[in-house]
Amino acid sequence: MFKEKFGEGIISAKQFNREDIEYLLKKSREMVNSTNSNLLKGKILATLFFEPSTRTRLSFESAMYRLGGNVIGFQSGDVSSIKKGESLADTIRTVENYSDCIVIRHSMEGAAKMASRFSKVPIINAGSGSGEHPTQALLDLLTIREECGKLDGLNIGIMGDLKYGRTVHSLAVLFSNFDVNLYFISPKELAVRNQEKEFLIQRQIKFKEVIQYRSLLDLLDVLYMTRIQRERFVDIEEYEKVKNVYIFKQEDLINTKDTFILMHPLPRITEISPDVDSSKKAIYFKQTSYGLMMRKAILAELLAE
Amino acid sequence: MFKEKFGEGIISAKQFNREDIEYLLKKSREMVNSTNSNLLKGKILATLFFEPSTRTRLSFESAMYRLGGNVIGFQSGDVSSIKKGESLADTIRTVENYSDCIVIRHSMEGAAKMASRFSKVPIINAGSGSGEHPTQALLDLLTIREECGKLDGLNIGIMGDLKYGRTVHSLAVLFSNFDVNLYFISPKELAVRNQEKEFLIQRQIKFKEVIQYRSLLDLLDVLYMTRIQRERFVDIEEYEKVKNVYIFKQEDLINTKDTFILMHPLPRITEISPDVDSSKKAIYFKQTSYGLMMRKAILAELLAE
Amino acid sequence: MFKEKFGEGIISAKQFNREDIEYLLKKSREMVNSTNSNLLKGKILATLFFEPSTRTRLSFESAMYRLGGNVIGFQSGDVSSIKKGESLADTIRTVENYSDCIVIRHSMEGAAKMASRFSKVPIINAGSGSGEHPTQALLDLLTIREECGKLDGLNIGIMGDLKYGRTVHSLAVLFSNFDVNLYFISPKELAVRNQEKEFLIQRQIKFKEVIQYRSLLDLLDVLYMTRIQRERFVDIEEYEKVKNVYIFKQEDLINTKDTFILMHPLPRITEISPDVDSSKKAIYFKQTSYGLMMRKAILAELLAE
Repeated sequence: MFKEKFGEGIISAKQFNREDIEYLLKKSREMVNSTNSNLLKGKILATLFFEPSTRTRLSFESAMYRLGGNVIGFQSGDVSSIKKGESLADTIRTVENYSDCIVIRHSMEGAAKMASRFSKVPIINAGSGSGEHPTQALLDLLTIREECGKLDGLNIGIMGDLKYGRTVHSLAVLFSNFDVNLYFISPKELAVRNQEKEFLIQRQIKFKEVIQYRSLLDLLDVLYMTRIQRERFVDIEEYEKVKNVYIFKQEDLINTKDTFILMHPLPRITEISPDVDSSKKAIYFKQTSYGLMMRKAILAELLAE
Repeated sequence: MFKEKFGEGIISAKQFNREDIEYLLKKSREMVNSTNSNLLKGKILATLFFEPSTRTRLSFESAMYRLGGNVIGFQSGDVSSIKKGESLADTIRTVENYSDCIVIRHSMEGAAKMASRFSKVPIINAGSGSGEHPTQALLDLLTIREECGKLDGLNIGIMGDLKYGRTVHSLAVLFSNFDVNLYFISPKELAVRNQEKEFLIQRQIKFKEVIQYRSLLDLLDVLYMTRIQRERFVDIEEYEKVKNVYIFKQEDLINTKDTFILMHPLPRITEISPDVDSSKKAIYFKQTSYGLMMRKAILAELLAE
Repeated sequence: MFKEKFGEGIISAKQFNREDIEYLLKKSREMVNSTNSNLLKGKILATLFFEPSTRTRLSFESAMYRLGGNVIGFQSGDVSSIKKGESLADTIRTVENYSDCIVIRHSMEGAAKMASRFSKVPIINAGSGSGEHPTQALLDLLTIREECGKLDGLNIGIMGDLKYGRTVHSLAVLFSNFDVNLYFISPKELAVRNQEKEFLIQRQIKFKEVIQYRSLLDLLDVLYMTRIQRERFVDIEEYEKVKNVYIFKQEDLINTKDTFILMHPLPRITEISPDVDSSKKAIYFKQTSYGLMMRKAILAELLAE
């Protein structure tokens, strides 16, 4: 059923309804102890990363190995024929013959969607420019569900670069399947885009846009921080102006609820002070474990016979 | 028998007689359904790529995994000790201790041959400068044999960069084992080298050299196109002059036989117009699948106990 | 027992006493025929290489595959989130969730030690700046033990860059567990550091510092050569002055004992003339095989259930 609906791939958070999400959350939980399975024996995952990655690539690869499969791919476009001038479409029409599923990260916003048009094997979007990063948003929902015990009824702050942050875009869309209150916290220059806002309004999701976060801290169940991404700015001066606009510090935790959790898709640069790391409310490293569980579930659903 | 003859490796197309080729074509066909075999369990392939690659490296690695083996290696010389000034010979005398077979791509024409002199495990030449690329030529013959049903009696055009194209050099040599009519189509600056011509004359293979291809289209069974390779030109102005000399378009297909096939080792840049891709005569993406079959056959023959 | 003592990782040669070393030498010998084992099936090794490597990375990966495990990682920091400004500590707190053991090479002297503070899985130091490279030193001792039949009582010369050479630092420390006579041979600028000398004095190991090696050749059982490492010099003129200070030639072998062995951790540049390679006294390529055995033993001890 999942395979039928997502057989062409996971390109956008918009493909998921509440039932799909809850199904994946349940399957992810079942994966926690699958560390030496034969479920995907003989299967090959291709990981084509045209932009740097630590968590996304390594968690997909670890997931594949834990389930008994294998991995081919490249860690940079420079070592592929793209370097000789090959188009992405031609690369996909080649790699589909050598693998059972393709995970792709690319600086171009429509890259994964375009790839899925050309591929006979499922494409998983692992980040397409400033566009989307749906599997990150799925693992984020798993994190919240497991740490907070529920999704409905939560007050959730999303802070940082809401304009270029692909994770934020996918996250806003997934949240629209639940009864949550969203607080978008950003400097004006990096405000959430109209397309996300219109989508949320259409789905009757309550949200507010604010610039300062401190007054919200006693209210929030979840604060999801993001990095200001240097690589998305055309104008480096624009970046310099906003790069240090938010720095979450240990003292900020004082006013938060006991059950408050601080999330981040990572990498973080300066936006969370290291003295926060030791708090049990800081769950951004644990979040990377939920990533492994979610990616195991996705691969198992797409590839198991 | 194959193992005995090719135990030191596959360095040049000149190692192959008609019987060897037909044996590999037969073995390749048997490989089509081997997607989850244990034949090479416990074996390790090393892929040492000093030049970029998509098809060659990934198909060798996929083949190895499909047969149950594993892969180590590097995707660029920059991450190896070559960067610190180590010689290729020393690299080989190290890697031979960690693997059962070494696939090497290098910008130097004699690289693979030199490697095989130092290695106790088989070396497979995956492209040595402007020299040879024998496994590409073998998969090309498999493609023709499967798509045209035969090799003898065919009219085959080879077009593009016949001077620097390593695939062309290996292909001309392999074709000399069959009763084919060859048409070498290129601008004068990129004409086929004397060494290939002398080899073909000596073996009594009929060939013609021409500059224009359109008048041949109704005659050809196969047109094998190649890329003008920027990276082989010392003088970039020379490259600019010839880079767009041939552009195969949809309208060129009109005058071709029903059974005509258009091949390309890929990557292609501008030399085949994208509107050709949808024709069933365009088989360059299917060609990449034959690559996987051929490389499975080669690895199985060299490495199975 | 080994697992208990080294469960946090192998960071420094100083962790090893004579009993630990002899245990690993024995275990390494037992590994010689383990080429297709299931001992580490389901286990994942992460290899995080921020500096180029051929032998160390490929032998760890080969060892892991020979024992049935799998490998994730990166071959260069440029393809990881370090490129986006992530700290090494954050990278470790991520990768520990995707793997059972982390092998790390980094240009910073304290990198591996710092990593082990943050990691819940064992860290193996595969070279930390000019600091240490303990598994190289362990394989070097295995080489000597197997080739000379013993360690105690030997006259051992260590020559080249004794100041910046991390292998040398680890080696001096390991040798302090045995009754050996050490000869440190280097130009004054690259003399062994005080910290190694004080350590040896404290442990009552006899050593001499000399500048010329020829007069020692009839006395030595082992000559361990090292590369002058360009990448460790701040001042390139300093490097140019000393880079060719020692060149071991075939004629140097004449005065050596019948049982003399010439070692090198590789890569070598010009410091051993190629005409030496064919001598049975030149065992630096064989040394790389001992590396595979030692790394199999280490991984088996740390990771087997």
